[in-house]
Amino acid sequence: MDRLYFGSDYQEGAHGDVLARLCETNLLHTVGYGTDEFCAAARDKIRAACACPGAAVHFLVGGTQTNVTVIDALLRPWEGVVAAQSGHISTHEAGAVEFHGHKVLALPPTDGKLDAAAVRACCENYWADESREHIVMPGMVYVSQPSESGTLYSLAELRALRAVCDAYDMRLYVDGARLAYALACPENDVTLPDLAQLCDAFYIGGTKCGLLFGEAVVFPDGALLPHFFTTVKQHGALLAKGRLLGVQFDALFTNDLYFRLGASAIAAADRLRDAFVRAGCPLASSSPTNQVFVVLDDATIARLAASVVFEVWSRCDDTHAVVRFVTGWATTPADVDALIALL
Amino acid sequence: MDRLYFGSDYQEGAHGDVLARLCETNLLHTVGYGTDEFCAAARDKIRAACACPGAAVHFLVGGTQTNVTVIDALLRPWEGVVAAQSGHISTHEAGAVEFHGHKVLALPPTDGKLDAAAVRACCENYWADESREHIVMPGMVYVSQPSESGTLYSLAELRALRAVCDAYDMRLYVDGARLAYALACPENDVTLPDLAQLCDAFYIGGTKCGLLFGEAVVFPDGALLPHFFTTVKQHGALLAKGRLLGVQFDALFTNDLYFRLGASAIAAADRLRDAFVRAGCPLASSSPTNQVFVVLDDATIARLAASVVFEVWSRCDDTHAVVRFVTGWATTPADVDALIALL
Amino acid sequence: MDRLYFGSDYQEGAHGDVLARLCETNLLHTVGYGTDEFCAAARDKIRAACACPGAAVHFLVGGTQTNVTVIDALLRPWEGVVAAQSGHISTHEAGAVEFHGHKVLALPPTDGKLDAAAVRACCENYWADESREHIVMPGMVYVSQPSESGTLYSLAELRALRAVCDAYDMRLYVDGARLAYALACPENDVTLPDLAQLCDAFYIGGTKCGLLFGEAVVFPDGALLPHFFTTVKQHGALLAKGRLLGVQFDALFTNDLYFRLGASAIAAADRLRDAFVRAGCPLASSSPTNQVFVVLDDATIARLAASVVFEVWSRCDDTHAVVRFVTGWATTPADVDALIALL
Amino acid sequence: MDRLYFGSDYQEGAHGDVLARLCETNLLHTVGYGTDEFCAAARDKIRAACACPGAAVHFLVGGTQTNVTVIDALLRPWEGVVAAQSGHISTHEAGAVEFHGHKVLALPPTDGKLDAAAVRACCENYWADESREHIVMPGMVYVSQPSESGTLYSLAELRALRAVCDAYDMRLYVDGARLAYALACPENDVTLPDLAQLCDAFYIGGTKCGLLFGEAVVFPDGALLPHFFTTVKQHGALLAKGRLLGVQFDALFTNDLYFRLGASAIAAADRLRDAFVRAGCPLASSSPTNQVFVVLDDATIARLAASVVFEVWSRCDDTHAVVRFVTGWATTPADVDALIALL
Repeated sequence: MDRLYFGSDYQEGAHGDVLARLCETNLLHTVGYGTDEFCAAARDKIRAACACPGAAVHFLVGGTQTNVTVIDALLRPWEGVVAAQSGHISTHEAGAVEFHGHKVLALPPTDGKLDAAAVRACCENYWADESREHIVMPGMVYVSQPSESGTLYSLAELRALRAVCDAYDMRLYVDGARLAYALACPENDVTLPDLAQLCDAFYIGGTKCGLLFGEAVVFPDGALLPHFFTTVKQHGALLAKGRLLGVQFDALFTNDLYFRLGASAIAAADRLRDAFVRAGCPLASSSPTNQVFVVLDDATIARLAASVVFEVWSRCDDTHAVVRFVTGWATTPADVDALIALL
Repeated sequence: MDRLYFGSDYQEGAHGDVLARLCETNLLHTVGYGTDEFCAAARDKIRAACACPGAAVHFLVGGTQTNVTVIDALLRPWEGVVAAQSGHISTHEAGAVEFHGHKVLALPPTDGKLDAAAVRACCENYWADESREHIVMPGMVYVSQPSESGTLYSLAELRALRAVCDAYDMRLYVDGARLAYALACPENDVTLPDLAQLCDAFYIGGTKCGLLFGEAVVFPDGALLPHFFTTVKQHGALLAKGRLLGVQFDALFTNDLYFRLGASAIAAADRLRDAFVRAGCPLASSSPTNQVFVVLDDATIARLAASVVFEVWSRCDDTHAVVRFVTGWATTPADVDALIALL
Repeated sequence: MDRLYFGSDYQEGAHGDVLARLCETNLLHTVGYGTDEFCAAARDKIRAACACPGAAVHFLVGGTQTNVTVIDALLRPWEGVVAAQSGHISTHEAGAVEFHGHKVLALPPTDGKLDAAAVRACCENYWADESREHIVMPGMVYVSQPSESGTLYSLAELRALRAVCDAYDMRLYVDGARLAYALACPENDVTLPDLAQLCDAFYIGGTKCGLLFGEAVVFPDGALLPHFFTTVKQHGALLAKGRLLGVQFDALFTNDLYFRLGASAIAAADRLRDAFVRAGCPLASSSPTNQVFVVLDDATIARLAASVVFEVWSRCDDTHAVVRFVTGWATTPADVDALIALL
Repeated sequence: MDRLYFGSDYQEGAHGDVLARLCETNLLHTVGYGTDEFCAAARDKIRAACACPGAAVHFLVGGTQTNVTVIDALLRPWEGVVAAQSGHISTHEAGAVEFHGHKVLALPPTDGKLDAAAVRACCENYWADESREHIVMPGMVYVSQPSESGTLYSLAELRALRAVCDAYDMRLYVDGARLAYALACPENDVTLPDLAQLCDAFYIGGTKCGLLFGEAVVFPDGALLPHFFTTVKQHGALLAKGRLLGVQFDALFTNDLYFRLGASAIAAADRLRDAFVRAGCPLASSSPTNQVFVVLDDATIARLAASVVFEVWSRCDDTHAVVRFVTGWATTPADVDALIALL
């Protein structure tokens, strides 16, 4: 029997609609580096989806690459980026932000999220310090929507972060690696146009949301970084056949594919959550998105591991652990049925 | 009428065999980051093609990314990389090598190539200088095979470079963005096993040679860089769905596809060269590979530009310029016929 | 009336013996960059004081410069440096370590110090993590002797840190900006030869300990970094008139000056501590070195501030704060008498 | 007999007036990091000498350090610095500019100098290139006054460079390591106020011109870099006892010392040049400053080397070489007499 895959949301290729477009366009000739008509069309669709006609949209290949390139471009050399200690840039990017010269100013998270009050306190401390010129200046706030714990920033929370950014001349950047799975949640009240209004930059993740690969960076102020193209090149992040990104994002923003595939993953995750609760397994996070964190006893973990791919997240005690199941655009109802049958 | 495309070798998607494999494997589940079975299979095929069973093979996405990551990994902080002034890293990578901290020690090329004698003289000067500790140490030699002018290093020339590297404790790195088009030339006498014997690192370019994207870095000494994976991650160059690279390179090294597509591009280029010569247009480079440089008068350039995509390389005089036509795996005999008919 | 200066230990020029040597040698001619006979003599004296005849000794100008240059030289690109959250590199060096590409892995301090058990736990977590190649590898331990809180690492504590370093292939580096004030403490049981036995690198601070400026970096294994000279140059840290550093360190290690001036500062600090305790002001740190941390009420702080320079360190409550008084080689018994008279 | 020293201009300590001020102020207490009254006074004197009351003046320790810090602060990440191939940053700073992320765009010099026409051509090529976003943008012009060959930029030449900078949005930076020896030349027509009018930044070198160490960076637009202090700290270039720089520069700009010591070195160099010409030894550079380049036969070189310190610069033929003699503030008329007597 084949195993069931709930290990992550990047374990398959691309959604069928996306792959079909890549195949259809495969032998067409275009210029390189994202200056082609497919990229132009995709940019227009993203600008429309964000209700932000003046935005600059750049396509990059992967998430860490996007984070480090955008952060590097938005920070001045003497500035650091404020992030949750659990933020992706704080933990799982091999120090790429520091490798490129900037300190991550990591704050303890609340429910997986960066709290505006904590950021404000960090800034107040900095600006109140008479020797602050010997200290890294907070220059930017980094948050992931949804967070690494699967939780969601509310519109009010993002506005509070924006207010702190405004008060202290900081930029606000949202990592949207799994943004489709936030947008599709009934609990979510932050839209793409909201992000375009609140952020200096954010990215619409494709790698985990239906594409082979690709992340679309949106700078709502299109004039903010006139030389970002060269910055991307310097980071080795410029794709020669940029049209591959354009074709894919164009497909993703056609017929609401991006929103539909998010919704299917959320429906799958919701069914899983219900099933775990019914089975008496306590949820370990309030995540309403496609990451399901649940406490299981070791016997159950061992039994499931025989036929299901998932991740043991952290130990609770000698006989229990928090386990993560991730759904995605490729998760089928049958996959969910099969997993539930195993509980 | 559709235009004829001779502008570059990255203006289409992937070879049909490669795309087919991506489609077939699209919904299979794998782990990420290149630790999957497709990557393992592709690595094995590349090791076999290089007759180098102990090699470490890493897959990256693009050429500049590969150059900067490999150079950064192989150089020590106080070292620079010796390259031709016309080398890709010297000119068209937006200073990515310097951005990552290393000087490119650029030497005048001979027929587009770096001459071993010139490299030796550079090293002799360095080591003879009593204040050399105030100077960048030559730590590596970078060459492209074929060169940016389309010319080929002979085996004797590469051995001479290797000898200089051995004499001065330098590493030798070959940029193989267009390597398929070198290997397929009758004039070529440098094989993949030769590269594996002579180089500390080289890469087998996929982006320009049949893949959607992807470059396979080969370190013949598999133990040379035990933490290269993390280095790749730090550079933002690690592809989450690494299997996309494995699938593609596996297809490329199945049924000699890599060698066959190189040969078809060379046949096309040879037909073009013959046609230009017959038409009385002097060739501007001794390139035997897939880049054809030819001197045309401005009237001809204007006439061709109406229906052909190509690049004006440099001005010769008031009425002539050097023009570059590039063939590739996607160039059809009909494309060549059509272009020749226009001469 | 002149004010009393207890603000820091770098508020004056140089000890008289040091300045005298600079004046005596001022018009002598030497070669540059630390290759002169004064530097050679100073190196020999430092090697002798460390009982480490094979050590490489390099002279740099300032503390942050020394830290960033040594850390950069000893870390490999994918490694970070473990330090206390209160460590100088974590807080007051403007992100210089990150600016040069490395993450500071900051751990909560115990009594101002980095605990070997905490470092071990950090390393165990790293090496137990299956995705550790996506995480910054701990490559080095940074501690200050005395710590930023004035506390001392015991020989047993340093040996425990060394054992963790040995277990996890990490280097151990001791920042000795105020090392003279550690060595002179009766409580101290760590000698210069101990440091040479235990560390991969440490520096003997001159700026705060009697010199105009200058820090002597000691690499007990003299063959460890054959190109450190060039590394220093690249960091802009190479002093043209290197002999100024040689002359000063030679004077500092003549007639035990380095040890004598440390002792006088400790005697002054001890008298202050006694006086504060007698005056009913609780000490806020167990520091036995030249930094005296004491809790004062705001009225006392205001009264003292009228005639004494010192630093308010942190607030305790609405009416009290921790205040820092620093003694140094330039603190006279009369200064201490005058301050005590004000309590 | 003591040897005669003409090897460089940093082989002694400080001018007597400077050393005297350091001694007088040695035990005074000040705050650190250049925020003291001595630095304030020195800044005022430098602003006055430059007729630029709004300038920001920062004191750094050494030349390479100053170059790399200023260049790093003035360049944006995607920009490089245009310099002569013989420029100090191109050759003898161990790649410090590249180490900090920027390419040096090196152009062939004319009489040791960067020609405005050559810079303009470089910029024209860049801006005419349709793929310029893949290329390093020229962002700054670096020149040394006097040049590394001892030659002088005329006011007209500097204005021409400024005009190119204005035309292409570049900054102009003048390295004044030996500026005193330019200002003191009868041939010179560029004053400190001229530099303040023409440059975005320049530095007044102290290390080679009478100080123990120290370079004064002048930004004529005092608002240009509000966080330069932190930039200096990040580079490890901030001197704790900043007052040492203030005291020295204050002395240097008291009683015209800076100009007088330049004049004495030029008088010595002029006497040497005359003597060489009279002795039939051809001068090898048109340098009118304190560096004297002369062609000598090997027998003479060997004879002089027995009692004189100087530098063999480059070979002319099998029996002759260009030799460099450097005078400085410390060169006495007796030294010159003695050398001339040996010819």
